[in-house]
Amino acid sequence: MSNRITQLFGIEHPIVAGGMVWCSGWRLASAVSEAGGLGLLGAGSMTAEVLREHIVKCRQATGKPFGVNVPLMKPDAPELMQVIAEEHVPVVFTSAGSPKKWTAWLHERGIKVAHVVASSTFATKCEQAGVDAVVAEGFEAGGHNGREETTTLCLIPAVRRATSLPLIAAGGIATGEAMLAVEALGAEGVQMGTRFALTAESSAHEAFKQRCLALDEGDTKLLLRKLSPTRLVRGGFFDAIEQAENAGASADELLGIIGTGKSRLGIFEGDLEHGELEIGQVASLLKGSEPPTVQQVFDELLDGYRQAKTRLTGC
Amino acid sequence: MSNRITQLFGIEHPIVAGGMVWCSGWRLASAVSEAGGLGLLGAGSMTAEVLREHIVKCRQATGKPFGVNVPLMKPDAPELMQVIAEEHVPVVFTSAGSPKKWTAWLHERGIKVAHVVASSTFATKCEQAGVDAVVAEGFEAGGHNGREETTTLCLIPAVRRATSLPLIAAGGIATGEAMLAVEALGAEGVQMGTRFALTAESSAHEAFKQRCLALDEGDTKLLLRKLSPTRLVRGGFFDAIEQAENAGASADELLGIIGTGKSRLGIFEGDLEHGELEIGQVASLLKGSEPPTVQQVFDELLDGYRQAKTRLTGC
Repeated sequence: MSNRITQLFGIEHPIVAGGMVWCSGWRLASAVSEAGGLGLLGAGSMTAEVLREHIVKCRQATGKPFGVNVPLMKPDAPELMQVIAEEHVPVVFTSAGSPKKWTAWLHERGIKVAHVVASSTFATKCEQAGVDAVVAEGFEAGGHNGREETTTLCLIPAVRRATSLPLIAAGGIATGEAMLAVEALGAEGVQMGTRFALTAESSAHEAFKQRCLALDEGDTKLLLRKLSPTRLVRGGFFDAIEQAENAGASADELLGIIGTGKSRLGIFEGDLEHGELEIGQVASLLKGSEPPTVQQVFDELLDGYRQAKTRLTGC
Repeated sequence: MSNRITQLFGIEHPIVAGGMVWCSGWRLASAVSEAGGLGLLGAGSMTAEVLREHIVKCRQATGKPFGVNVPLMKPDAPELMQVIAEEHVPVVFTSAGSPKKWTAWLHERGIKVAHVVASSTFATKCEQAGVDAVVAEGFEAGGHNGREETTTLCLIPAVRRATSLPLIAAGGIATGEAMLAVEALGAEGVQMGTRFALTAESSAHEAFKQRCLALDEGDTKLLLRKLSPTRLVRGGFFDAIEQAENAGASADELLGIIGTGKSRLGIFEGDLEHGELEIGQVASLLKGSEPPTVQQVFDELLDGYRQAKTRLTGC
């Protein structure tokens, strides 16, 4: 599976663990990198100093490359970037903002840059901005999501046509079969969030993991279209948002319902009733009484990928 | 590409053209069957006597097997089924209702039955009802859609686990690459609506085809969740629905806005402003100034499939 993605990041398998709020600390990121993928720290839920601590611990736990995901709309993005540069992190995944803003700055410091998009229009902007790889994330993905609502099956071919950049598919991918499927569509690697959020090494609360490992089809929905479209898990918080939206609530009214700190409350502190729970649609494929380890996930992914390839081609 | 789907229907390629309202008349169905796929007449927009006329003309145009799609919630479904039996149509695809209702009756008359589902729960019901094949259709699909909003990438593996029935994937599939992708997920055939709705042989209005061949990502959306979730194309009708929904319109209020005969007005009569326009999300991948013929579509699909397979496996 050596290709442009593995060569770009210096990794063994073209499998990236999304840098998720309240899930992607040093334990998860280092375990993914140790297993031969690219682990990402999720700076979306970290202050600059907390990020520094996680970078230091991640480096102590693995000698292999890892990266940081930085949501560019975060007010302290400049401080986060400063820490990343000072700590010589080799890879940054940027999202939720313009790829033009930080790419040159990061490149000047020898840092590889991938940017997350939900449309071919933004993929073209990535190419113009000079990023090293593009992550195309479909409607299935958990958490924040594109306004176009384009699914991974429709998005990957569109982005593949729009750019010649190394292409990582995201959204709805949790198995080796799905890795092969998006490769058929033109992707050269995958970013998985949900699958790694629900591992032993994820810093999410155990109650959150258990809830997400028991979801049925239809138990996540994209809501909050009047603010920033977000895929949420059914529960008290979800119901409050959905009812308000059905009744025609305005963006301001929705902000009032959301309040602050709800994703920490739900994902990190495990309050399934009042907290905001974010996970991808593909969670309903992942049943189990106990979250697997990252190494178990990698073993299953690689095995499933090989089996699907044999089934598909006889070779 | 001989497999359980080709053997079940007696066709050359496991490619079904969805039976679409106002698109799938005898010209389209017979052209698809002539090209080696399975053409379906769309009885959703036909009276029993119109259906009989189309069956007769379809049989005159091709000696190969074809079928009829019957939405079971249609009040005249019994009359449609009677015509199908009298005219000895070999295949029926049922949708929008319980697979238990007609399967035995059709089987007694020697007619093969496939049923369209949007969840693994309904796939299990299909197996219990004894249908011959299941069509699993994802969120990307045009027109009426499942409440779970499960995308094709997440749905196919779930249905594959739920049933051992021959499995046809639908929603978001318009290219040979996508055919290969869903095969990687466990599908044994594909049903394509959008791709065939936008061919020369489709009975849709030329203005509708031109509009759909010029769509960008995000130009279709799933609306009408308070009634029956439906994927619509942006335009005057879409805007009226979306605005009403954003303001909290009730199901009754939405029914008032929809009125009657709007899909005929939009798709068949080409009123892009006042009519209801239904197409799949994947339309944005299909650019072109002129709708291709069905044979051109088949040539492209099979060529694209082979190329993707070679690229993926080197064999």
